[in-house]
Amino acid sequence: MDRAMKLKITYLLLLAVSFLSLPLAGQKKTLNIPDIPGYITLKCDFHIHTVFSDGRVWPTIRVYEAYRDGLDAIAITDHIEYQPHKDYLQGDLNTSWEIAKKAASDMNILLIHGAEITRKMPPGHINALFIQDAEELKDPDFMKDIEAAVKQGAFIQYNHPGWKSQEPDGIPKLYPLHKELIAKGWLHGIEYFNHFEYYPEVLDMCMEYNLAVMGNCDAHDAISDTYNGMAIIKSRPVTLVFAKERSIESIREALFAGRTAVWYEDQIAGFSEYTAPLFYNSIETGKPFKSDEKNIWFEITNKSDIPFQLINGPDGAPKQLTIPAAASVVVKAQKRYADEPLGYEVKNIITGNGKILKAEIRVPKE
Amino acid sequence: MDRAMKLKITYLLLLAVSFLSLPLAGQKKTLNIPDIPGYITLKCDFHIHTVFSDGRVWPTIRVYEAYRDGLDAIAITDHIEYQPHKDYLQGDLNTSWEIAKKAASDMNILLIHGAEITRKMPPGHINALFIQDAEELKDPDFMKDIEAAVKQGAFIQYNHPGWKSQEPDGIPKLYPLHKELIAKGWLHGIEYFNHFEYYPEVLDMCMEYNLAVMGNCDAHDAISDTYNGMAIIKSRPVTLVFAKERSIESIREALFAGRTAVWYEDQIAGFSEYTAPLFYNSIETGKPFKSDEKNIWFEITNKSDIPFQLINGPDGAPKQLTIPAAASVVVKAQKRYADEPLGYEVKNIITGNGKILKAEIRVPKE
Amino acid sequence: MDRAMKLKITYLLLLAVSFLSLPLAGQKKTLNIPDIPGYITLKCDFHIHTVFSDGRVWPTIRVYEAYRDGLDAIAITDHIEYQPHKDYLQGDLNTSWEIAKKAASDMNILLIHGAEITRKMPPGHINALFIQDAEELKDPDFMKDIEAAVKQGAFIQYNHPGWKSQEPDGIPKLYPLHKELIAKGWLHGIEYFNHFEYYPEVLDMCMEYNLAVMGNCDAHDAISDTYNGMAIIKSRPVTLVFAKERSIESIREALFAGRTAVWYEDQIAGFSEYTAPLFYNSIETGKPFKSDEKNIWFEITNKSDIPFQLINGPDGAPKQLTIPAAASVVVKAQKRYADEPLGYEVKNIITGNGKILKAEIRVPKE
Amino acid sequence: MDRAMKLKITYLLLLAVSFLSLPLAGQKKTLNIPDIPGYITLKCDFHIHTVFSDGRVWPTIRVYEAYRDGLDAIAITDHIEYQPHKDYLQGDLNTSWEIAKKAASDMNILLIHGAEITRKMPPGHINALFIQDAEELKDPDFMKDIEAAVKQGAFIQYNHPGWKSQEPDGIPKLYPLHKELIAKGWLHGIEYFNHFEYYPEVLDMCMEYNLAVMGNCDAHDAISDTYNGMAIIKSRPVTLVFAKERSIESIREALFAGRTAVWYEDQIAGFSEYTAPLFYNSIETGKPFKSDEKNIWFEITNKSDIPFQLINGPDGAPKQLTIPAAASVVVKAQKRYADEPLGYEVKNIITGNGKILKAEIRVPKE
Repeated sequence: MDRAMKLKITYLLLLAVSFLSLPLAGQKKTLNIPDIPGYITLKCDFHIHTVFSDGRVWPTIRVYEAYRDGLDAIAITDHIEYQPHKDYLQGDLNTSWEIAKKAASDMNILLIHGAEITRKMPPGHINALFIQDAEELKDPDFMKDIEAAVKQGAFIQYNHPGWKSQEPDGIPKLYPLHKELIAKGWLHGIEYFNHFEYYPEVLDMCMEYNLAVMGNCDAHDAISDTYNGMAIIKSRPVTLVFAKERSIESIREALFAGRTAVWYEDQIAGFSEYTAPLFYNSIETGKPFKSDEKNIWFEITNKSDIPFQLINGPDGAPKQLTIPAAASVVVKAQKRYADEPLGYEVKNIITGNGKILKAEIRVPKE
Repeated sequence: MDRAMKLKITYLLLLAVSFLSLPLAGQKKTLNIPDIPGYITLKCDFHIHTVFSDGRVWPTIRVYEAYRDGLDAIAITDHIEYQPHKDYLQGDLNTSWEIAKKAASDMNILLIHGAEITRKMPPGHINALFIQDAEELKDPDFMKDIEAAVKQGAFIQYNHPGWKSQEPDGIPKLYPLHKELIAKGWLHGIEYFNHFEYYPEVLDMCMEYNLAVMGNCDAHDAISDTYNGMAIIKSRPVTLVFAKERSIESIREALFAGRTAVWYEDQIAGFSEYTAPLFYNSIETGKPFKSDEKNIWFEITNKSDIPFQLINGPDGAPKQLTIPAAASVVVKAQKRYADEPLGYEVKNIITGNGKILKAEIRVPKE
Repeated sequence: MDRAMKLKITYLLLLAVSFLSLPLAGQKKTLNIPDIPGYITLKCDFHIHTVFSDGRVWPTIRVYEAYRDGLDAIAITDHIEYQPHKDYLQGDLNTSWEIAKKAASDMNILLIHGAEITRKMPPGHINALFIQDAEELKDPDFMKDIEAAVKQGAFIQYNHPGWKSQEPDGIPKLYPLHKELIAKGWLHGIEYFNHFEYYPEVLDMCMEYNLAVMGNCDAHDAISDTYNGMAIIKSRPVTLVFAKERSIESIREALFAGRTAVWYEDQIAGFSEYTAPLFYNSIETGKPFKSDEKNIWFEITNKSDIPFQLINGPDGAPKQLTIPAAASVVVKAQKRYADEPLGYEVKNIITGNGKILKAEIRVPKE
Repeated sequence: MDRAMKLKITYLLLLAVSFLSLPLAGQKKTLNIPDIPGYITLKCDFHIHTVFSDGRVWPTIRVYEAYRDGLDAIAITDHIEYQPHKDYLQGDLNTSWEIAKKAASDMNILLIHGAEITRKMPPGHINALFIQDAEELKDPDFMKDIEAAVKQGAFIQYNHPGWKSQEPDGIPKLYPLHKELIAKGWLHGIEYFNHFEYYPEVLDMCMEYNLAVMGNCDAHDAISDTYNGMAIIKSRPVTLVFAKERSIESIREALFAGRTAVWYEDQIAGFSEYTAPLFYNSIETGKPFKSDEKNIWFEITNKSDIPFQLINGPDGAPKQLTIPAAASVVVKAQKRYADEPLGYEVKNIITGNGKILKAEIRVPKE
């Protein structure tokens, strides 16, 4: 028997081999999400915990997970008011961010300084992102904390507004306190996806009050233990940020401008202003490769990692078309569609509560 | 829309939904293999059986499998001399190709007419590809069959030359009969990959005699039953053909010109003339994202579906780098590599018996 | 580089190694489904097609698939009235069964002779199982065919009664013709599961008319292409037959006696007479491993390959308990449950339309 | 209940549902490893790290992982001399064990108190298991630490003896210091499997010096991140302990008596005294189900989760037989094997350096 375990090359490919000695798999998965005109699309997660609040992993793990999962940016957002491990720990409310910083710099991950202000409803749980010092956010008076965060330049996010532990009917609501924040310009985004949940009403709220729609993992355990056992899931919830460039400052600018969409499993949600170009930049329609007297045959290719399900197709064409990530589908349609667009709705691109994206497929000329 | 996550969409994505009523999954997987300068890269399988010889699936299945697997072209190559099901079948040696033709035309699969001339060693098993009529290839005199095929314009391929049932030591050899074929210009390619096997010596033979290196599945059962149970395998063996355009005639031209490489699992084999540009078009090296007094940090991204394993790296840089398909890796290297190329060998690109591709990684300037 | 591909032993485990030279993976998966008191539980599929009707695989494949999938028995049931490949085939309506017979005898698979009588609705599609000669079943008069089948000793099964191609509202119904069959004793079972579908009303119909509930795959392509791409699915639909012994005659006796349940994905359906003992023989409850003043802690183990989801638990105990196949779950419950049974409902064991199994968990004494 | 298949149940099955609110998946996988005559077989991992040394997960995670992975017992063995996070932590060398204790008691996991004495070679890294107080093991004098551990009743394990960071040629050796420990009765076991490595020479060393063979994960990150990405791996390395009962004291007794074997991937290693009954209790051979003049056909079933690869079979029977976990294989053999045993070797049960288990298959009489 050979000394070395006889492993297939495939097996070796899964192991870290760089001399950076990564504690996790040493490679970054490419997430194919297209840019949109004028902006690059960054994959971000703005809500993550570590042992420094009630999480169960060391801060550096969050960086290595983000790298492996193909993200551009994360925020570590430990609870200010809830730290069950504090008898065993030293440091202050900025420590988890400080520990993660060097790892982030080594891995080209943009690390955003954050904290979760954790109160009963209302206001519930609120993330302050892009802060300078979380130690300034521990006043018992909630409004003082938000004011301090805003002074530091923070983007304020309302977390999991339909979480049943705080909102028993599961329906997200804006309480007077939230509306007061909005009136002051102190609330900037709301989570639509959190952990395994989603809150359909959030998209309309964001539209009405001009807020950014957000999607984050809120993980307390290892990401692999939280999501990857479910093989059908491509990604944890992420916020797609349409930014001018790949930098923390540019993400901050995009968030304040509301240029986001959210992605979890097979669902995209966001205003059609952003999700329509995302769809059109994901899809490529080929010239007809066959035709007869009545019909043309052509292919639609999905270049992205988001599967699309087209429904309510027009007469003389498929009623439904499912195009998985990185896949094509052959379409047979009546000859007139060589000239006319085919109107569909994209079932898994949600643009409002009960609304989905309308899209047109145009077959290119020979 | 239900408040609860609609998981069913994921499930539907796996089902055929087009009104073409496909018997198999109705979508085509994209295989990301880059083109090379001057040519497009077509994914082809030139050796497949059906119930019309000793296979166990109907000819149309071969087309739907090719579509699902992301191939551009296949040849159906039933045995001329071995047809164990013939008491139950009607038709002639062209029937399997004829049955598959309409399905191929509907699915944009290029279907090549072929047949396998099946003799004891030597010559062993020989595929005639791009034929007109297999009925002309059933003379007991082998040389007459080859002559007839060549007259039809056929490309002649020597199949699985190291198959132990015919070559007990497993080492492929060119017998006098094969050399006679070569001398007459009647042998044009040899299989390097067949089914689950490979024959390292074939690459040097092809180099010496100016033949095309070929890789094919030789499947008799469903492709899913043959390969997909092994989840670690991305693809059945395929021949990558560097063609001027996507057409049967263009594939034929490329094969006669020897412009091929072969791919199976994590291995690519082919002359460096073709595999070097394939590698360079797969890889993208980013500008340094970090540097200190001694080192730079940068990323190498693999845009293809072929994982690469770089070995024998230079001093002051990682000795090994593994870059899975659709993934990136962070590299930390000495500062001088901002200016000098990093020399590696690509362990899984085989360019000759015992030889692998040498490649240089160049870090772009700011 | 070694001549032999360096494959892990795991990889080799997936390949056929017996000298029977199986065309498919050469091992049989064990399906852990418990026996019930007085009977052994056989896993059967009574509805499968081959190239000899509108299927696309050779008959022997159906045997090898059944072996690999861990089944005990299958029926090959090609259509009598629909044979799109017949111009290319020779033989009669018994040929597919005859071809499969030797393979079945080699693999210890019980092969049942069957045929599908294929008419418009009503009666729709009807399987005759345990027949002697399908050639006697091709009279245009449907009733004559059923009579001939019954004379041969056949078990008559009504297939996919809610299939939308024949029953546009998707709701299965018994037409006067079906009731006439029942009155004559000429209808013996109805499919509850077929392919990817299920028909909730069938269980009550079977109860009312004393028929066997049936679940079958109705596959036309390879089973791997039909089901296995969906990794979450453990099995194609199967009929669990509670038989006196492992023989064709014993399966026939059990079917006529209505001793069946059906299994697909995570769902079991059947009369509680059979599904209750199936559940109790699958589950093992351990003694408390911990207790304090208020609670006991104990484990429930699921020894079967069917996951169970217990719901509507009693006060002072978990409301829900999910016990995957071959797994255990820790339960913390109030101390009184050391003496009293815990009442649950088993969400995924369906005993009637809208009804699920009630079950009691009893914690054994120290 | 919806007419459409409720796929969501499958999804829910993956989530924790008990009111214990587990942070990880709430169910325990059953590992089917048979008991052997006189002993029960416990699955144990005696080498694991947490944030309290150089690990990156909280101690409770180690308990939940062990539960999910189907283990009976674990030891948390943080380094005494290497604690890179200590500036951020409070507590002493027993703290990680204390934190994990309540979780272990809730989950029925046997939690063994341990520590890793971490020195340069020799002696290298040494685990003290079943200790009372790790604070007594921090004397700079190595021998004093071992003496203190032994006084506490510890089992002393030599860790990863061929780890290249300490043993550049990768070959494990017993240095004079190790032999001194053995002479004093202060060394009781050596790791054969550690993390992803194995050390073939260890089995013979254990045989010569009457030590227990050990196999452990030595994980620093989440187990899912360390092993589960490699889907082909059933388990982290574990030590199978043949114990009189399921208790910490009984494990300790078995370790001192050397009653262990080790399991990782598809490999079992251990003295044939234990691995032979493990094999025979895993395997069940059926009566012949078919025979003709020359041959019998019968099935061999593997009831365990360890795949077996039988090689060097006798004349007139398969040379090789591969029986995956929870699977059967059909065997065709000459008629005389109805009476004579079939002699095989079990390729993946290693009984010494270069030695594998010899085993006999006996076909039962009708």
